[in-house]
Amino acid sequence: MVKELIALDTPALVLDRRKLESNARRMIERAHGLGVRLRPHLKTLKSIDAARIAVDPQHGGIAAATLNEAEYFARAGFEDIQYAVCIVPQKLKRVARIHAQASRFSAFLDSVETATAVARFAQQHAVPLRIWIEIDSGEHRTGAEPDGAELLAIAGALTAPVVLEGVATHAGHSYAARSVEEMTAIAEQERRAVVHAAERLRAAGFPIEGVSAGSTPTATFLRSAEGLTELRAGVYLAGDLFQAALGTISRDDTAVSVLATVISHQRARGQIVVDAGSLALSNDRSTARIPGRDCGYGLVVDIDGNASFGELLVDGVHQEHGEIRGVEDALFDALPIGSKVRILPNHACMTAARYDRYAVVAEGRAVIGDWPRTNGWD
Amino acid sequence: MVKELIALDTPALVLDRRKLESNARRMIERAHGLGVRLRPHLKTLKSIDAARIAVDPQHGGIAAATLNEAEYFARAGFEDIQYAVCIVPQKLKRVARIHAQASRFSAFLDSVETATAVARFAQQHAVPLRIWIEIDSGEHRTGAEPDGAELLAIAGALTAPVVLEGVATHAGHSYAARSVEEMTAIAEQERRAVVHAAERLRAAGFPIEGVSAGSTPTATFLRSAEGLTELRAGVYLAGDLFQAALGTISRDDTAVSVLATVISHQRARGQIVVDAGSLALSNDRSTARIPGRDCGYGLVVDIDGNASFGELLVDGVHQEHGEIRGVEDALFDALPIGSKVRILPNHACMTAARYDRYAVVAEGRAVIGDWPRTNGWD
Repeated sequence: MVKELIALDTPALVLDRRKLESNARRMIERAHGLGVRLRPHLKTLKSIDAARIAVDPQHGGIAAATLNEAEYFARAGFEDIQYAVCIVPQKLKRVARIHAQASRFSAFLDSVETATAVARFAQQHAVPLRIWIEIDSGEHRTGAEPDGAELLAIAGALTAPVVLEGVATHAGHSYAARSVEEMTAIAEQERRAVVHAAERLRAAGFPIEGVSAGSTPTATFLRSAEGLTELRAGVYLAGDLFQAALGTISRDDTAVSVLATVISHQRARGQIVVDAGSLALSNDRSTARIPGRDCGYGLVVDIDGNASFGELLVDGVHQEHGEIRGVEDALFDALPIGSKVRILPNHACMTAARYDRYAVVAEGRAVIGDWPRTNGWD
Repeated sequence: MVKELIALDTPALVLDRRKLESNARRMIERAHGLGVRLRPHLKTLKSIDAARIAVDPQHGGIAAATLNEAEYFARAGFEDIQYAVCIVPQKLKRVARIHAQASRFSAFLDSVETATAVARFAQQHAVPLRIWIEIDSGEHRTGAEPDGAELLAIAGALTAPVVLEGVATHAGHSYAARSVEEMTAIAEQERRAVVHAAERLRAAGFPIEGVSAGSTPTATFLRSAEGLTELRAGVYLAGDLFQAALGTISRDDTAVSVLATVISHQRARGQIVVDAGSLALSNDRSTARIPGRDCGYGLVVDIDGNASFGELLVDGVHQEHGEIRGVEDALFDALPIGSKVRILPNHACMTAARYDRYAVVAEGRAVIGDWPRTNGWD
């Protein structure tokens, strides 16, 4: 018997499988068109079922943002898992356990101190840890300077049996871009920085194979991938209102939404209240940063996922309450107490992280799957 | 063998048991001093161990913000659980199952439609559901007008075997207050509204016993509880930087913090990066609303919980990275890569919700307990 969304307890996280498939396919084709392979970042969806759809058949690798995710995907049989965050010496025992399950598991680092500790650990435990040197391509979060002296010192400290996979970067500042031109320019800056680092290392005698770069905005608007071997991106799989406002993916392609129930009518104030608040939706306000594109805490669509209510927004949140304000009288009849809506999120990574599973649909309200996802750091 | 915080994987959630105990005791004494009982709201801590410390021995009841929490506490033997959110007809089967385990389980509602559906369900299934009519005391979220005609109609619709527990309100707009005087005034407004609703119902012949009100700011600064039977509050148990900025609880009494590890040094930019970002800390920016009290994404304290670094803040977050900017050179030596710090949260409810457990300490770094917590809505 097919279950229907209408029968689910709320709030619940909904994933549209067809939209996920087309989002995944589009980015794989884009990477191949640029002559590189795609490494999907699973930090947003954190789901084995989604990862199987997202992987590039010419690559097979994925990226993860936590060691917990890496363990989760390693248990499921994924071999090439890139932990795209700087490792520290205190986490190397855990890294070695993951490496024992996923032979191509790799991690980032950006300092001589850590490189030295990794080499010592790898030698003591005879484990060929795989490392990417992280490069700062302008985001100024983590990463070595592509032009700095430390880059060569880091590579020099990564002695056998450590395997230097290559250099990697993430132009996260592309999220602050406000036009295609800006995103294209940041994509080129990202590419140049990491390719330059690879060339300097090669000139110094280090054999660099992997050159990894990407974010959803830069992977979407990159014009040339010359010198790169792979693109890395993640939120394009889900889509969200912020990415739609940036122009990287359309609202109609948003694959993730929150199913919610109307719990209160405040007709005199033109307000409908749903059971999805700051925990169910997150209190991410990314869209507020883009003039004219502020979507409050999410866009209210109907249970089938269609934008039947125009620009109806969740305007305010409390922990378990979402307030939809400025509601016209007719809508109170269309959305009685107990009726269900779906809410497109501002930032899918933040919203999805509150849930342990997806109710999977395929362009409609029939639930065709129940996919677990991992969360947390344990 | 006592485990130490320094041995834990990060990010991890830390709870100081002594601070929790003193926060709990202070609010119980305050309620008793006002001649009422305290119903602690467990929406922040969501922990059975914490609830046992928090309950008022003269009351025994708690409040919950999700049906999942209610189920969790019912399984642990709590009887008097108030679901302080409007129920809807679609959730009544689940409510009845909770009621079968926790005989004094109760829920809120604020409409004649829901009251009618509840009465019909209760009669059909012969289950004496317990209901509080929610009153709007100025927050304008949910709740019936204390002066409106609908209040009496709702009570009238709650026919046997439904048990009308009483009237309840939450002056959540107290979070927007910026002085003790304002919080005191809102507390009085909250009290008057719900007491007035109780009196109107009694005058109309409905026997109203319970008169429940509260939020951490109003419960802290209420001058008279005349006409109330219980105070309800939650975040005072944890404390956080926003409550400290409001003046309801001191920073030193903050019982919840996030243990994080330094993962990158960017000396040239005066920046230290930790492995606690928007998922580990939340991206709540409540303190930014209070001029001069903006604490970024959290205050960095040492592993023992002491404010050894002055006003050192997490200034920026990415999903798994927290950026501490403007770091003086000496601090790079004090906080090498791999060292651990604790971060006090802006809003404990949002931060704690990312974790399944607490590493429990007692004013120090020795881990004396491992307490589970519940999350989500399933």
